[in-house]
Amino acid sequence: LHEILRLRRDSWNRLGPAERSRCLEEAQAYLAAAAKPATGDTAVFSLLGHKGDLLVLHFRPDLASVHEVELGVRALALYEHLERTASYVSVVELGLYEMTGKIWEKLAAEGIEPDSDAWRARLAKEMEHHRDRMRSRLYGEIPPTRYLCFYPMNKRRGEEKNWYAEPYARRQEMMRAHGFVGRKYGGQVTQVITGSIGFDDWEWGVYLFADDPLVYKKLVYEMRFDEASAWYGEFGPFWVGLRLSTDDLGEVLSGRLPPHRP
Amino acid sequence: LHEILRLRRDSWNRLGPAERSRCLEEAQAYLAAAAKPATGDTAVFSLLGHKGDLLVLHFRPDLASVHEVELGVRALALYEHLERTASYVSVVELGLYEMTGKIWEKLAAEGIEPDSDAWRARLAKEMEHHRDRMRSRLYGEIPPTRYLCFYPMNKRRGEEKNWYAEPYARRQEMMRAHGFVGRKYGGQVTQVITGSIGFDDWEWGVYLFADDPLVYKKLVYEMRFDEASAWYGEFGPFWVGLRLSTDDLGEVLSGRLPPHRP
Amino acid sequence: LHEILRLRRDSWNRLGPAERSRCLEEAQAYLAAAAKPATGDTAVFSLLGHKGDLLVLHFRPDLASVHEVELGVRALALYEHLERTASYVSVVELGLYEMTGKIWEKLAAEGIEPDSDAWRARLAKEMEHHRDRMRSRLYGEIPPTRYLCFYPMNKRRGEEKNWYAEPYARRQEMMRAHGFVGRKYGGQVTQVITGSIGFDDWEWGVYLFADDPLVYKKLVYEMRFDEASAWYGEFGPFWVGLRLSTDDLGEVLSGRLPPHRP
Amino acid sequence: LHEILRLRRDSWNRLGPAERSRCLEEAQAYLAAAAKPATGDTAVFSLLGHKGDLLVLHFRPDLASVHEVELGVRALALYEHLERTASYVSVVELGLYEMTGKIWEKLAAEGIEPDSDAWRARLAKEMEHHRDRMRSRLYGEIPPTRYLCFYPMNKRRGEEKNWYAEPYARRQEMMRAHGFVGRKYGGQVTQVITGSIGFDDWEWGVYLFADDPLVYKKLVYEMRFDEASAWYGEFGPFWVGLRLSTDDLGEVLSGRLPPHRP
Amino acid sequence: LHEILRLRRDSWNRLGPAERSRCLEEAQAYLAAAAKPATGDTAVFSLLGHKGDLLVLHFRPDLASVHEVELGVRALALYEHLERTASYVSVVELGLYEMTGKIWEKLAAEGIEPDSDAWRARLAKEMEHHRDRMRSRLYGEIPPTRYLCFYPMNKRRGEEKNWYAEPYARRQEMMRAHGFVGRKYGGQVTQVITGSIGFDDWEWGVYLFADDPLVYKKLVYEMRFDEASAWYGEFGPFWVGLRLSTDDLGEVLSGRLPPHRP
Repeated sequence: LHEILRLRRDSWNRLGPAERSRCLEEAQAYLAAAAKPATGDTAVFSLLGHKGDLLVLHFRPDLASVHEVELGVRALALYEHLERTASYVSVVELGLYEMTGKIWEKLAAEGIEPDSDAWRARLAKEMEHHRDRMRSRLYGEIPPTRYLCFYPMNKRRGEEKNWYAEPYARRQEMMRAHGFVGRKYGGQVTQVITGSIGFDDWEWGVYLFADDPLVYKKLVYEMRFDEASAWYGEFGPFWVGLRLSTDDLGEVLSGRLPPHRP
Repeated sequence: LHEILRLRRDSWNRLGPAERSRCLEEAQAYLAAAAKPATGDTAVFSLLGHKGDLLVLHFRPDLASVHEVELGVRALALYEHLERTASYVSVVELGLYEMTGKIWEKLAAEGIEPDSDAWRARLAKEMEHHRDRMRSRLYGEIPPTRYLCFYPMNKRRGEEKNWYAEPYARRQEMMRAHGFVGRKYGGQVTQVITGSIGFDDWEWGVYLFADDPLVYKKLVYEMRFDEASAWYGEFGPFWVGLRLSTDDLGEVLSGRLPPHRP
Repeated sequence: LHEILRLRRDSWNRLGPAERSRCLEEAQAYLAAAAKPATGDTAVFSLLGHKGDLLVLHFRPDLASVHEVELGVRALALYEHLERTASYVSVVELGLYEMTGKIWEKLAAEGIEPDSDAWRARLAKEMEHHRDRMRSRLYGEIPPTRYLCFYPMNKRRGEEKNWYAEPYARRQEMMRAHGFVGRKYGGQVTQVITGSIGFDDWEWGVYLFADDPLVYKKLVYEMRFDEASAWYGEFGPFWVGLRLSTDDLGEVLSGRLPPHRP
Repeated sequence: LHEILRLRRDSWNRLGPAERSRCLEEAQAYLAAAAKPATGDTAVFSLLGHKGDLLVLHFRPDLASVHEVELGVRALALYEHLERTASYVSVVELGLYEMTGKIWEKLAAEGIEPDSDAWRARLAKEMEHHRDRMRSRLYGEIPPTRYLCFYPMNKRRGEEKNWYAEPYARRQEMMRAHGFVGRKYGGQVTQVITGSIGFDDWEWGVYLFADDPLVYKKLVYEMRFDEASAWYGEFGPFWVGLRLSTDDLGEVLSGRLPPHRP
Repeated sequence: LHEILRLRRDSWNRLGPAERSRCLEEAQAYLAAAAKPATGDTAVFSLLGHKGDLLVLHFRPDLASVHEVELGVRALALYEHLERTASYVSVVELGLYEMTGKIWEKLAAEGIEPDSDAWRARLAKEMEHHRDRMRSRLYGEIPPTRYLCFYPMNKRRGEEKNWYAEPYARRQEMMRAHGFVGRKYGGQVTQVITGSIGFDDWEWGVYLFADDPLVYKKLVYEMRFDEASAWYGEFGPFWVGLRLSTDDLGEVLSGRLPPHRP
């Protein structure tokens, strides 16, 4: 879950310096503690543009834990001077099509005959292995890059072009081609794909972590020509922000951009 | 009917502790009483994300009763510190296609010849039986699960794919296939389908009650591939929340998530 | 014209009891007087859901009169504590297609040969008669039922299905079939169809007056399968409310639903 | 350019009578002076419905002049109690298709052979003449009728029906048929068509001035069946208002509709 | 990046003249300094219509620098009296199709045989040269014209007409034709095309700088008939404003339009 918050300058400015410090200290202590639970992570980003000032991102193993940390944020004294402009509720996804695609490639590279018994056994083992790797990602750390890009998306359900009416094999093939583009940027950007069907208004939420933000433009532009995106991708609004150390929250609200502390 | 309410932190924080307690006590007493009428039920949920803090859900046998309990909520002292961000007015539906489908299956399993006199008699009897069962659900209790998911939906009225231009038999067939998916999750989620044609902006409102919220994602995702959903389903925003005991209202507004008390 | 108004609880609650009474008395006196002009009527409804608390409906013979009564409402002391969330400007319509359809049926029932001279003479006479009847409806009373349902609608102007590109005879035929459905509910619901092309954002506004609100759902659902609605109807938001005696305005704002006084 | 303004009743009512008078006097003096520049005109309308209370319309020969008068309005003391809900920036258009159509008809009526040298010479002369006539309209007075109707519109750029992909001759033919309808209402309504491509969110803005507002409904309804409108017209919101003498501004804000003073 | 800001007249008017002067002086000093960094530029525009009062535009070589200057604006005392209504995050684009098109024309004019070795060598050299020229534009000055027009746009991703499913050669051909129109206005308007895929909600943002604003209408209208725009262009809202000297900020907020100081 993440929330987008906008500072209400008028009520914030009305506070005296001591009150402001108290607000910031409470918030920084809370967010620092929230960033180090047994499982999960919490991070704050300073946003470009008018959609908000701060994005607070929580990774947690279940909805109750994420709601708990969110309720704590809402009860901060600072929160009275913030307004929520957006949020997103979703769970990290295993990337079924992509994972399957990767394994198939690997098995093919190893010369294992598709659909043979050996192939099936290896497929099951590899999928288990990937699930373990993903699980650690699910409850692990938020990647420590300087920039975050977030956008939600749907698969089109049009009257003619309808993802959900395409056969599984076609969808898999398109997602594999889509995945190839993503992998080209593997070293420069960490993608966290989350699913929000049943939880939020779009079907997926995409978090892109990178140190050079120009890679967002290149990656998203190149993907737009994939068959999966060109005909079936529908994209929501985009948010871009810079990671903050919780210690730097006060600096940012005072109008100064602190250096990145990875 | 339900209403989504957001707490206005600034005016709430301006109250002294005694005033806050008085507001909460009045609200808790009102909601506890509203939860135990002769017919119907009332429950409160704490929402994830920015769309609101609380969802107040009322089941009542008619619109006048539901309006009466809603007017009472609006007159609470607490209500001055809340703003309504959304609501939904609808009536619980018998699920015509689904019910008919179920009965047809049952009669077929019993070997009764379709369209025979015996078949017709049994059909009428079964439908009466189901109506009675549904009626108890209509005015009964709100299921006591920890999580609630709500979303409104329409059947598409496109220029090419148009639910309302499909013949009855086609619609019934699609709804039966749709119902099969729903029934697979029968033990894990309680679906309450409500109709809002003529009452609210979407045609149906779907309430999903469950203890494990991941089932929302699985159920809604699987259904999305049904012909009825893929080509004809149009989905509104999704809200997800955790059930609160009315005693716990103050806890939640103070930023703490109380344990579930079923 | 009608306006949807939401009570601003914070400013309203800040008033003392005497000020509140003064506001209510002024408003009740104004609305009671507005309900009894030489021509026209004014009524207040208490709305379900978050879209507003009150709907104030004015029937007047021309736009200047309706604007006059609206300006008077805006100048009430109570109005400072209300915010306008929506409104609708439209004029009652004769229902050309429906009326023509009705007359054709009648003449056919009387055995008059279509397109004969006698048929033409009777057609002209019947249309004059209906216009007179409608005229009384135009400036007459607001039906005294307990419930009101309002929704605006358009005729689709799609790239394929386009009402305004259909020949007159096809449109008339579809409207006749549409009218048959409406007439089935004649005893249970009073429909007032208003035209708002050139006046407001949708093409028509539909007011449904009934004592049993479930008829809204049945009527609108059944109509949705008409060819005219299935392919060509586009529906805006729906509002549902309960009629208030102007004397009961204070009761409702205090959270109590008064009994219906027809 | 016009702006739609809504009175903030709470802050306005908080002023004492003397302050209110001072605000009104300043505004009335400013608007009266703005209505009589060397070139252009300014007028105020009282709006029906919830979209705003006042529409302030400025005709000026260039964007800098219109911005100058707009900045002056924003600096009025009254403006603190108003909120802008909408505006429109556009320039009066010569109506190329319509003008050309008119001239072709005229030359045909005179028996001049199309595309002959005489025809070309006359065409050029007539177009010059019309441009002069239009120019006076551009910087002239706002028509002094009691009612104003405004709506913005686009020409559809659909995937199938696309105005901008139609050949010039087809577009001209459709605009001529469209113009015939407009001319039928010539005596009852003055149309000012403005272009806003590159200036505002829609492509055109249409101002209809009339003494009888029912003509708006008749004109817009009849036009909706034109090929140009049925397939290619996309319409924005509609605003309808009554012309105010600047002296009557205080009357209207006090809830009284003054008589029309043409 | 630019931000659209609206002045909150009520809080601004509540300040005394000395406080207002202090706010303005701080803002003017900040903006004047921001306009003269080693690389980049900052400018302020006064907007027509209700969408905002000021547009603050920053050209910077990277997102961190642009965020830094934006944070500084948010911390100004004046900012408490402004509300952000919109913003746009994008990076200046090389105009790949257009640049390639230009070079091809040039080489053809020089009689160099397409796809020959000489042609390839010249192509590479020319592209390098253009990239250098563009780079200077990227970090250079904001053109000093009196007017600015901004609008965002997408390339359509429809179910039938889909830019991203067109082959490269077709897209290039359409962009070349599109570029021809743009070049016709080369002397009258400076176009800065920025890309925002991955950064903001639309794919491109277009800044048009000109001294005569009528050229916006002519240019955008003429382009609308290009195949690239007619079938594939989707346009967002348009903003038009007049350039302000930072010294003139106070004049404009007081309701006076200062003369242009290029």
